[in-house]
Amino acid sequence: MPLLSHIKIVLVETSHPGNIGAVARAMKNMCMTNLCLVSPKTFPCAEATSRASGADDILAKVIIYPTLQEAIADCQLVIGASARSRTINWPELAPRECAEKIIKNTTHDKIAIVFGRENSGLKNHEMDLCHYLLRIPCNKEYSSLNIAAAVQVVCYELFIASTLKKENAVICDDNKTQKATGLQMESFYSHLHQTLTDIGFMHPDKSKSIMRRLRRIYNRIEMDTKEVDILRGIFKMSQDHQRDK
Amino acid sequence: MPLLSHIKIVLVETSHPGNIGAVARAMKNMCMTNLCLVSPKTFPCAEATSRASGADDILAKVIIYPTLQEAIADCQLVIGASARSRTINWPELAPRECAEKIIKNTTHDKIAIVFGRENSGLKNHEMDLCHYLLRIPCNKEYSSLNIAAAVQVVCYELFIASTLKKENAVICDDNKTQKATGLQMESFYSHLHQTLTDIGFMHPDKSKSIMRRLRRIYNRIEMDTKEVDILRGIFKMSQDHQRDK
Repeated sequence: MPLLSHIKIVLVETSHPGNIGAVARAMKNMCMTNLCLVSPKTFPCAEATSRASGADDILAKVIIYPTLQEAIADCQLVIGASARSRTINWPELAPRECAEKIIKNTTHDKIAIVFGRENSGLKNHEMDLCHYLLRIPCNKEYSSLNIAAAVQVVCYELFIASTLKKENAVICDDNKTQKATGLQMESFYSHLHQTLTDIGFMHPDKSKSIMRRLRRIYNRIEMDTKEVDILRGIFKMSQDHQRDK
Repeated sequence: MPLLSHIKIVLVETSHPGNIGAVARAMKNMCMTNLCLVSPKTFPCAEATSRASGADDILAKVIIYPTLQEAIADCQLVIGASARSRTINWPELAPRECAEKIIKNTTHDKIAIVFGRENSGLKNHEMDLCHYLLRIPCNKEYSSLNIAAAVQVVCYELFIASTLKKENAVICDDNKTQKATGLQMESFYSHLHQTLTDIGFMHPDKSKSIMRRLRRIYNRIEMDTKEVDILRGIFKMSQDHQRDK
């Protein structure tokens, strides 16, 4: 099912190799093949292969990255799964909305759905790399799904959405400008940070929270490369004026 | 969630106690509490408790039956999960249809959803006790979900259907900051326009198309008032530097 091949599942610092195997199985059941690991505790591992139960082709193709930033560098849309609320409100998607959004959208060549550690999920600096927070509706008093169970629900919704799309072929948007990749956005944020420092907006003690808020704003837009260029043109002009002083 | 308390999950001759624990966890995540086992190979078992990961209250209340017939004796609607086709065509339901049917239906006091053995599923004589066959849509070439993953998908659909019924589908966002009004956004755009003029970015012949592009970018975010304030703070700082020159 080529419709789903542009979506990668990224697991961050998974502790139990059995869970990695179970995730591979859950993915293959739903025609997804692209699994990436960020610093897994133990991998490869016999327990992962055993729980994969026939999905070892997916384990064999796994790519391991040292950081989440590197894992999503080629992605234009990054969605972080989280069971808990954040102090900063992230734009939230439920799995069904998320799947519909991904399947309807034809402007993203690469999409990542990121799942955090079994015990503590994703850290805030990892959520900063995400455009959306994905939350699975569930029991408020017992909200932490096993990671493979969470992947199963999300991949199931993607599979359902992709079969629905095939049934009612949707018109393509071929001439849309490419969305910016993770790498392009990191370079955008460095430029923004530098500009704010140059114009004197950035106080060292507040720079972290300011940048987090700005990431939240700009990640929500899912800018295309032309839009990134326009904003960086503005940054450059502000910097030039600063330098001229 | 009393809406779901009349539904029992029945596992027939489960081999791996870890799966029983994982099923209990998947159920509790989705507000389901009623688990029955038909001749499990090993239960109770430390591995089940460990994989239940906090859902041991469900394991503690498990009822064990010698046969499926006894397990479903009090049920008015029995649905059997199956990954494979049957020579006899059963009336089939997908999980979403199944959930809608169950939640809409108020005439059944007791409903059972039955899952078969890990390797071989339900036997035909057990399917004979079922009103419907429940099949999870998936990869035709790799169609056997882990039993806990299958229970997770089915319970997830039941939970979603029950929240839709309660019309509480959306997670509450009580403490979100107010979205900016049209008036606030117009004032934001005037400020942006003035800032771009001040820093020399705005050429009179291009200002209209630049502003249209920027509106397209910023309208997409649906900013809240706090976010508008942050960005206007940045604009002001750029303007002040310009004036200082």
